[in-house]
Amino acid sequence: MTVLGVDPGITHLGLGVVREEGKTFHFLHAEVVKTRADEPAPARVGRLYERLEETARRYGVEAIAVEEQFFYRQNELAFKVGWAMGAVFLVAHGLGVPVFGYGPMQVKRALVGHGHADKESVARMVARFLSLKEAPREDHATDALAIALTHLFHARLGPKPL
Amino acid sequence: MTVLGVDPGITHLGLGVVREEGKTFHFLHAEVVKTRADEPAPARVGRLYERLEETARRYGVEAIAVEEQFFYRQNELAFKVGWAMGAVFLVAHGLGVPVFGYGPMQVKRALVGHGHADKESVARMVARFLSLKEAPREDHATDALAIALTHLFHARLGPKPL
Repeated sequence: MTVLGVDPGITHLGLGVVREEGKTFHFLHAEVVKTRADEPAPARVGRLYERLEETARRYGVEAIAVEEQFFYRQNELAFKVGWAMGAVFLVAHGLGVPVFGYGPMQVKRALVGHGHADKESVARMVARFLSLKEAPREDHATDALAIALTHLFHARLGPKPL
Repeated sequence: MTVLGVDPGITHLGLGVVREEGKTFHFLHAEVVKTRADEPAPARVGRLYERLEETARRYGVEAIAVEEQFFYRQNELAFKVGWAMGAVFLVAHGLGVPVFGYGPMQVKRALVGHGHADKESVARMVARFLSLKEAPREDHATDALAIALTHLFHARLGPKPL
């Protein structure tokens, strides 16, 4: 089972691909796609779409897992994260793969064991589960891997896709 | 100049196409695309994308104009309207056309002359500008035509695309 984890956003979008084989989790890919506020919005969302699509296709991703925030500090932020979600859903639709959503506390609970873990603890567990010396340097990439792992931990429970 | 107006939403998305020739505005198309909350999100956003893309292509649309709300009652609503916006931007990116945003007061001002006009006044002016007996039965379709007209009224002012 190969999962693409996504930490969605319009200025920074984290991507992480994890494959589970037997009882082992393999790190396949992590990156942060960046767009600038002074670029036209169609080009920004277009680049997110292309990187998501290319990554999902290259690794034969079977599911996409996204971090869902339930509260945003601002409406405008929620709106713009929504743009990125539109790209995620269209990639999923094109490839025929389901999308699963996990809240930040679910991710922390899955990786560290409780919902109030700090970033460092999550990063340490991402590295441990994936047998990496350390987690990626960029937070959004680590978050994306954490979300992919969260889905793999939940997959046997039959979560409902978005 | 042919413009696709969009009233963005995930359960109801209004589409309206208006062409300006000389001093005349022609009604070309109006519809409301509907999706159900019990459908998978990728299929919902996928259907919006497909209808937007097909409509934009069929009428040779040169610009897309969307209604932008600046306040949403809820974060979650803003997030989900964002999903639809993702589809709009990706259609625009694929066809190489710019996207322009107008707030509800700008639309009312452009059509009726002041920013606090009621829905009926806007609908009446949509019908009048487009030489229709009456505006479309569905509000979201009328809103989409109003947004397309708003862009045509602003186009000479060189608005900045999103």
